[in-house]
Amino acid sequence: MELFTYYRSTSSYRVRIALALKGLDYQSVAVNLIAAGGGEHRQPHYLKLNPQGRVPALRTDDGDVLTQSPAIIEYLEERYPQPPLLSDNLITRAHERGVASVIGCDIHPLHNVSVLNQLRALGQGEAHVTQWIGHWISSGLATIEQLIGDSGFCFGPQPGLADVYLIPQLYAAERFSVSLAGYPRIARVAQLAAQHPAFINAHPSRQPDTPA
Amino acid sequence: MELFTYYRSTSSYRVRIALALKGLDYQSVAVNLIAAGGGEHRQPHYLKLNPQGRVPALRTDDGDVLTQSPAIIEYLEERYPQPPLLSDNLITRAHERGVASVIGCDIHPLHNVSVLNQLRALGQGEAHVTQWIGHWISSGLATIEQLIGDSGFCFGPQPGLADVYLIPQLYAAERFSVSLAGYPRIARVAQLAAQHPAFINAHPSRQPDTPA
Repeated sequence: MELFTYYRSTSSYRVRIALALKGLDYQSVAVNLIAAGGGEHRQPHYLKLNPQGRVPALRTDDGDVLTQSPAIIEYLEERYPQPPLLSDNLITRAHERGVASVIGCDIHPLHNVSVLNQLRALGQGEAHVTQWIGHWISSGLATIEQLIGDSGFCFGPQPGLADVYLIPQLYAAERFSVSLAGYPRIARVAQLAAQHPAFINAHPSRQPDTPA
Repeated sequence: MELFTYYRSTSSYRVRIALALKGLDYQSVAVNLIAAGGGEHRQPHYLKLNPQGRVPALRTDDGDVLTQSPAIIEYLEERYPQPPLLSDNLITRAHERGVASVIGCDIHPLHNVSVLNQLRALGQGEAHVTQWIGHWISSGLATIEQLIGDSGFCFGPQPGLADVYLIPQLYAAERFSVSLAGYPRIARVAQLAAQHPAFINAHPSRQPDTPA
């Protein structure tokens, strides 16, 4: 498999964690979103692969190209079910996917670089952009603190789908200097992930395209 | 089952379509997002049900409360597999979920009422808010036009997950006066859905809480 990824993209980071948790080998193909000329994601050869011009994209061993991290991760779960990212209990699965959706739909889309650039295009200064980012991350994490469990990873002793989404979101929070104080459950999950090889190896600081 | 819904909420509308396509009975519980006092979704009794204070939420027959439309719809697909919303081909499933994610992550979150209000709180006038909405809907639909098939619904003769997301997004586009010209595949799907009972019955104009 080939993963088209950018080291700092949190949706790429999700897929890297999922691949690592499942012990799947892949080739990392860097797509530099800040390369000269508007970024490699806007170049014709990448747009041919992914018409939306976003990362990540996954090319399977059969040559199929999949886009959108939620779809890629569900594919990996179905194609390579062990170890599972989702519980076998349907209600728990819905709760796990619920946390993933809070992050994937209600937090991350609002601080995506394209959104921040659009805010700037509307004349917002950096102070307002920072306020905007903090608002969405903080309100989303406050929700998640109420949805996850009291021990282990988000939903138990093994990491799963919710953790795959949460850890990259915490990385983004730190990058944007959003306070993570006041979320003891989330802090507990972050501590566990910081010691787990799959999360360590998927981290933006350790990718082939991470700047020196 | 009880569905906590608001007639005009496009994420509620998705779940209504999914329930209708599967022929599932449910009780509709209206949550008026524009009721006096900041909306019923912000009242303590609703926040106890859904700490995030958003619609939709689904209470199952066993009393479990599920939130976030992507998680609810995947639950319905797993709990009530017939008729299926997803192909049994893993790659097609990923493409179906990919279209759902373009809408659920890259379009809808950016014109959610909470986001538009946050834009206004940053001092944006209505002209800029309208420009913002149009930008995200138009660029998202242009992507989707390239991802869906050449006949039938988005991915074949029967409606599925991608259609469940697309039709409410088109309703939002019309509500916000965003042009739908130039998307012949999307227009074809919209025409088919307009004649399909599940889509007709789930429409915002036909809900118990639709204003007279």
